Amino acid sequence: MDCIFCDIVSGKIPSDTVYQDEEVMAFRDINPKASTHLIIIPKSHIPTLAHLSKEQLPLMGRLVGIANKLAKDEGISQSGYKVVINCGRGGGQLVPHLHLHLIGGRYFFEPPL
Amino acid sequence: MDCIFCDIVSGKIPSDTVYQDEEVMAFRDINPKASTHLIIIPKSHIPTLAHLSKEQLPLMGRLVGIANKLAKDEGISQSGYKVVINCGRGGGQLVPHLHLHLIGGRYFFEPPL
Repeated sequence: MDCIFCDIVSGKIPSDTVYQDEEVMAFRDINPKASTHLIIIPKSHIPTLAHLSKEQLPLMGRLVGIANKLAKDEGISQSGYKVVINCGRGGGQLVPHLHLHLIGGRYFFEPPL
Repeated sequence: MDCIFCDIVSGKIPSDTVYQDEEVMAFRDINPKASTHLIIIPKSHIPTLAHLSKEQLPLMGRLVGIANKLAKDEGISQSGYKVVINCGRGGGQLVPHLHLHLIGGRYFFEPPL
């Protein structure tokens, strides 16, 4: 299966990794829309948000908990941030591997996402 | 405490409710940015995403599970959708009660959120 994010998880494609544990990985978006723009993914391949099974839903708590931690690390916890999950091509999802965008700081476009 | 979403939960302010259970409520955004624009909230008052305690993180799984269900109900599960959580004023959060935006269908602005 050809998946850029799975290749990042395996180390086949390099990334600017800011966090990882057994289940989750986070790295900087290569095309950032703000001074902080991180991608947070489950290491296992889940194509989209809609594909999450009931048993996998607790994973969302883990991903959001790590987003909150990274927002603190990045110094945007007080100034504010967005967590965006695009689901499916029509929802703006470019890589078919579930991911959260953590976006904050100075925006590089208007209007902000 | 003055909170519009708490007033919606209590019924003091009417809403176009599409879902509710003991913990969660969902209603249509009064200023929709797309043909489907729902607000999904925990009934208990949690000010922002950053305020979620470790014990409250499983709630995110519940909120996302309901977002996925509502996306099906709204007929946007296949066409695609976005789940957006704004955290803090600087993150674009207008009502200080944790909420998910579920957005899909025809967008009423460009570029889409």
